[in-house]
Amino acid sequence: MKRIAYPAAIQALIGELKRLPGIGPRSAERIALWMLQSRDARPLEVSRVIREVQESIHACPRCGFFTTDTLCEICADTTRDAAQICVVEQPTDILPLERTGVFLGRYHALGGRISPLDHVGPEELRIDALIERIKAEAPSEIILALGSDVEGEATANYLATLLRELPVTVTRLAQGLPAGGGLEQADELTLSRALAGRTAVKG
Amino acid sequence: MKRIAYPAAIQALIGELKRLPGIGPRSAERIALWMLQSRDARPLEVSRVIREVQESIHACPRCGFFTTDTLCEICADTTRDAAQICVVEQPTDILPLERTGVFLGRYHALGGRISPLDHVGPEELRIDALIERIKAEAPSEIILALGSDVEGEATANYLATLLRELPVTVTRLAQGLPAGGGLEQADELTLSRALAGRTAVKG
Repeated sequence: MKRIAYPAAIQALIGELKRLPGIGPRSAERIALWMLQSRDARPLEVSRVIREVQESIHACPRCGFFTTDTLCEICADTTRDAAQICVVEQPTDILPLERTGVFLGRYHALGGRISPLDHVGPEELRIDALIERIKAEAPSEIILALGSDVEGEATANYLATLLRELPVTVTRLAQGLPAGGGLEQADELTLSRALAGRTAVKG
Repeated sequence: MKRIAYPAAIQALIGELKRLPGIGPRSAERIALWMLQSRDARPLEVSRVIREVQESIHACPRCGFFTTDTLCEICADTTRDAAQICVVEQPTDILPLERTGVFLGRYHALGGRISPLDHVGPEELRIDALIERIKAEAPSEIILALGSDVEGEATANYLATLLRELPVTVTRLAQGLPAGGGLEQADELTLSRALAGRTAVKG
């Protein structure tokens, strides 16, 4: 007597679900069985929206954000300040910045950061497109909103050097204590950067 | 200036993923963004296997297990013991029993358990089909492998009463201490059932 397992189609489904980020083997099996046992069209709906996203969403040719249109909502919005371009690593970094409600300019997603270990050099990133945009749109300020890890720093330094020749101010996000964080939770690097970036207080 | 969000297709995807069991809003967003940023065909593959499972898998008309064929692997296996039918609540309960490697008979999934609160009565379950099978296949033993909660107990009692008229032995899974569990971890109900079901030890 052979050992019984799920039919191949179910095993393939569990295998695919297991590859999703944050989904382990147990969760994958649980989701697959839920799909098998649900009597409505919801699993097919999941299948449909995955396909729809893959087919309809593409990168905005100007800034790299997600869009179904020729330009994304941000680039198409003429009320936004064209004088500021905020450079981010990934298009997904745009939404957290938007949620702050503070930045009213435009974005430029590089599509990654310089990381020799992952074989990502400057030529893999949308840096040429950024230079073109600066020349075409003539912004007054480029804000580098890159990660504060080694690769983010390296990318920021590379860009700062490159953009020195262009008539544009280059700034970067402040580094320091996170909001709500006490000194005892801050690591040494954060604390030394917070010290180095200290600002004057009116006395 | 309006607040920017993800395009509608991405929001729909996040919404659908959020409904999967064990997936919260953060995980749903993470999976959706992973799908957007993956440059290979993997998200489409996920979409495809979900659809494939929905289209190809159906319930075995005899026992209720999953199959792509007319009969499931277990029912089609003529080397299995036709004298024992193990009754489970859900088809997904069959696999854990198979993993034990101990049971060599056949299965019958009821498709649920009697639960008045969820409006599930005996007529919603595959009980008539079980009676038909007993008459047609003439097994010598029906093993009730139902849950040890209130609804499982109620369903087991209902079936035991119903099957009393038929020429078949009805047994149920033992209740007692789980393997590896000490007395201090066992709750009162488990312990009282373990006491009631105590077995003789050779002296």
